[in-house]
Amino acid sequence: MRRIMLVVAYDGTNYCGWQVQPNGMTVQETLNRALSELCGSSIQTIGASRTDAGVHAKGNVAVFDTEMRMPADRFCYALNTRLPEDIKVQASREVPLRFHPRYTSTVKTYEYRILNRKLPDPTRRLDTLFVYSDLNLAAMQEAAECVIGEHDFRSFQASGASAEKSTVRRIYSSEIRKEGELLTFRIVGNGFLYNMVRILAGTILEIGRGNLPSGSMRRILEARNRAAAGPTAPAHGLTLIGIRYPEWEKLWAEK
Amino acid sequence: MRRIMLVVAYDGTNYCGWQVQPNGMTVQETLNRALSELCGSSIQTIGASRTDAGVHAKGNVAVFDTEMRMPADRFCYALNTRLPEDIKVQASREVPLRFHPRYTSTVKTYEYRILNRKLPDPTRRLDTLFVYSDLNLAAMQEAAECVIGEHDFRSFQASGASAEKSTVRRIYSSEIRKEGELLTFRIVGNGFLYNMVRILAGTILEIGRGNLPSGSMRRILEARNRAAAGPTAPAHGLTLIGIRYPEWEKLWAEK
Repeated sequence: MRRIMLVVAYDGTNYCGWQVQPNGMTVQETLNRALSELCGSSIQTIGASRTDAGVHAKGNVAVFDTEMRMPADRFCYALNTRLPEDIKVQASREVPLRFHPRYTSTVKTYEYRILNRKLPDPTRRLDTLFVYSDLNLAAMQEAAECVIGEHDFRSFQASGASAEKSTVRRIYSSEIRKEGELLTFRIVGNGFLYNMVRILAGTILEIGRGNLPSGSMRRILEARNRAAAGPTAPAHGLTLIGIRYPEWEKLWAEK
Repeated sequence: MRRIMLVVAYDGTNYCGWQVQPNGMTVQETLNRALSELCGSSIQTIGASRTDAGVHAKGNVAVFDTEMRMPADRFCYALNTRLPEDIKVQASREVPLRFHPRYTSTVKTYEYRILNRKLPDPTRRLDTLFVYSDLNLAAMQEAAECVIGEHDFRSFQASGASAEKSTVRRIYSSEIRKEGELLTFRIVGNGFLYNMVRILAGTILEIGRGNLPSGSMRRILEARNRAAAGPTAPAHGLTLIGIRYPEWEKLWAEK
């Protein structure tokens, strides 16, 4: 038996999120079906990040086990001919059977995109949040930078989320870039609580609009209370950029 | 009676082009319906550029006549509440009744976007042409610059196009920018023949791939023969960026 790792990109617009569920088509189910067709047996993938409905990915990660002897890097091309245009595998490689994409230390990168202009742009409606209010960029940048380091992010966890063992996460970088009308909130960390990036984006946006005071991010973080933070920003502005596995990548590089 | 000019942006993916036609929903028909609902009478717009199915616009132009006394700049907001998410008006203003968006000298800007990478990116599938071949950027840039100036563009007119009075057009700028994996062919001119930008893009792409020799653009231009040029590049890579009316804008600025 071999374990194959896939890097998967998708436009989440037309899916009920990543994870298989009874109420509609998901990215994982679409991938499982294409894989099962390719391998000639029922294949169940294990995903790294269970993105919500409407969230996009440039590089989510999934693994599956197979007896098939195809060279590992060819799965990518063979799968893409069986996948719809809005889901495409970006890379495939063989990994040890003990590699699990979730129970392994990771570095994840997310981007939340805000299109700040007076009128909606139909050509950017699927991957940016349209915001017409004037935004205080400096205040938003300060708020974004405030979360760098190790913190208890309980304030930024969806209130309906199952009680996690720990709500402490380490953020390696967190910044807002402005390119014309586009503001991109890019955050890199060792993990994110349920809806954490969207609640951070929603809170930073409220600070940018002046609905929350400039400099209030630290107080919100320290409150350890979801009610202190801003609303959850809509899913379609969010993209999972990529997931790295530093410990494994060292081993992979040595091979 | 007043004439109102609209600047219209759309994602052309789900429409059979701009112009009203019997076989499917078009951008113009959607706009006409929203306007008729708003004005309470049947409104027919006149469009500046009859973009093909799948082509996008940041700023196509249309005019319509109405007795309605709403301030001209408010039509934009009133219409957007009645338009779907993939069509949004960007501006509205009153223009003289003798202003016609087609029979007036214009400066039009188009962009054709190529995503040059090894595997398709689902999040860019609707507004870029995916090309996996290695491309000779310098040869493409030289080919793009070759069409600057006044030329007979008969080689770049769709063979099925109705015989135009003149196939001479003036190109003010034509260049290819590279930003990471994205190549953008941006062309500005006083008018374009039917399918001209897509045939130019298809020809430049063949030069980039090495299927047509480096430096062959001038010969193709001089051939005045559609058969000398490359294929018509797919519609979805093309975006009409904007249309300017230099003579009228002077008058508008004076008001």
